[in-house]
Amino acid sequence: MELTILGCHAATPRKNAQTTAQLLEIKGQMILIDCGEGTQMQLRKLKIKFARIQHIFISHLHGDHCYGLVGLISTFRLLGREADLHIYGPKGIKEMITLQLKLADSWTNYPLHFHELDNTLPELILDHEKFTVTTLPLDHRIYTNGYLFREKVGSRKINASAVAEYGVAVADMENLKKGRDIQLADGSHIANEKLTFPPDPPRSYAYCSDTAYKPDLATMVHGVDCLYHESTFLDSHQDLAIKTKHSTASEAGHIAAVAQVKQLILGHFSSRYSDLNEFITQAQNHFQNVHLAEDGKRFLWD
Amino acid sequence: MELTILGCHAATPRKNAQTTAQLLEIKGQMILIDCGEGTQMQLRKLKIKFARIQHIFISHLHGDHCYGLVGLISTFRLLGREADLHIYGPKGIKEMITLQLKLADSWTNYPLHFHELDNTLPELILDHEKFTVTTLPLDHRIYTNGYLFREKVGSRKINASAVAEYGVAVADMENLKKGRDIQLADGSHIANEKLTFPPDPPRSYAYCSDTAYKPDLATMVHGVDCLYHESTFLDSHQDLAIKTKHSTASEAGHIAAVAQVKQLILGHFSSRYSDLNEFITQAQNHFQNVHLAEDGKRFLWD
Repeated sequence: MELTILGCHAATPRKNAQTTAQLLEIKGQMILIDCGEGTQMQLRKLKIKFARIQHIFISHLHGDHCYGLVGLISTFRLLGREADLHIYGPKGIKEMITLQLKLADSWTNYPLHFHELDNTLPELILDHEKFTVTTLPLDHRIYTNGYLFREKVGSRKINASAVAEYGVAVADMENLKKGRDIQLADGSHIANEKLTFPPDPPRSYAYCSDTAYKPDLATMVHGVDCLYHESTFLDSHQDLAIKTKHSTASEAGHIAAVAQVKQLILGHFSSRYSDLNEFITQAQNHFQNVHLAEDGKRFLWD
Repeated sequence: MELTILGCHAATPRKNAQTTAQLLEIKGQMILIDCGEGTQMQLRKLKIKFARIQHIFISHLHGDHCYGLVGLISTFRLLGREADLHIYGPKGIKEMITLQLKLADSWTNYPLHFHELDNTLPELILDHEKFTVTTLPLDHRIYTNGYLFREKVGSRKINASAVAEYGVAVADMENLKKGRDIQLADGSHIANEKLTFPPDPPRSYAYCSDTAYKPDLATMVHGVDCLYHESTFLDSHQDLAIKTKHSTASEAGHIAAVAQVKQLILGHFSSRYSDLNEFITQAQNHFQNVHLAEDGKRFLWD
């Protein structure tokens, strides 16, 4: 999995501070998570071939997470897109986008599918050939979901030297990848394990923004390879975090520790802080492997 | 009047090519004309104190002219704006914006006034103390207005040396500025013309985008100090201009010539052209004083 932070700042875009959007690649599938104003410019600036995006997941309908969506949808049309585009987001997102397209008399010339969400319990919303997506209900001022992305277990890997040694026919390779035992030309049976290696362990990514501190999130994201958890505030503004239903860096670190995730990325920083290193320090009181999101930064995990 | 081009490119924002937005200053009043995605970032990048904007004029509801509006309105709220904001634009603009604010549960904490337009004839829509704004009905794929901004005639200017020579009382200065004659302490009458200079001639700006070639526009913008006229295409794409209801640089030059304006600014360039100088050349077949719009460029006229 490869994650590119397109924007990671709260509230309003500023010079060198984009609002929230992320690009996640899973086995060649390109997924956009949230889409603040200017996301399409960020995609261009980072030279990302964004026509490949097939799925977009919007956490909630605050502007800093979705005001770039209608522009991106329009740009796809202008670029002659033909492929289907699937948009997942809170109930209301379809009306928000279609009203704007209607007023512009500019309907898309590609199939645009809306999947509106209103469940307040975790829900499997996409069962793709290569991955699944489950909602992570969050606690914010309006209806908000995080998303949990899990790769599916891949094929077993051919052990090239063993296959050559046993003289396995090419026609049997697909069966081997699927974990089946095979029969050689002389009638002997060979166990799959002798001819293959196990598949890569499936990787996972949990995106949680925006949310107040929500202890039960730790159960839902238990053991993920990478957790992105918002940390709008530092401890000194705990009162503001409670009032606005956001989290502090300490709270994000606490969730990561209880959930025993492999790494934590912090983001959605309030503009009041000029030095972000304190976010790391406060999160590390609870959990060691912490990174700061940064516009344009890439994270890769195996 | 001072005009700052925030963006002047057609269709979709690209690296170093913002979609349409302009800032017009008239006697200290700050006016925004159109608001493509990313306009608020441009305002910040150019260090413009955009909280001073009180009036926004939207030509039409294609995304490259209005998808930055809801974000700007939201940012005003986050910055604690209290002053009234007036938005003029096609019928539908109120629903477009208010639906998004409603879904975000983020109504503004300052008075937001929508002035929806549906007249297809020129109409005086704002009679401000310092200037007037009249619509310029355009010919595009959807309902579109250009806007004509005219300063009002200012006060007469005090002739300092004449005033000193005659010993005019300070209390009479306001009467002089208003063009009244005055009576001195000794009872003598002095004609206003002896004590003042005429006011600056009122300046004017016509904004015309997007539109097909529309000959009667020349009458409506006759003699303006500055005409911004879209020129999406060059002559070689005249067929596309007709099909998409845009103009060529030649057509813009022709309008400027017939209207006898003082200067012409070309903009709304299609992304297919890498060298924009040909726009100047083709417009100059009809009208000499032509300039290219450029993101961040300022135009000033007295």
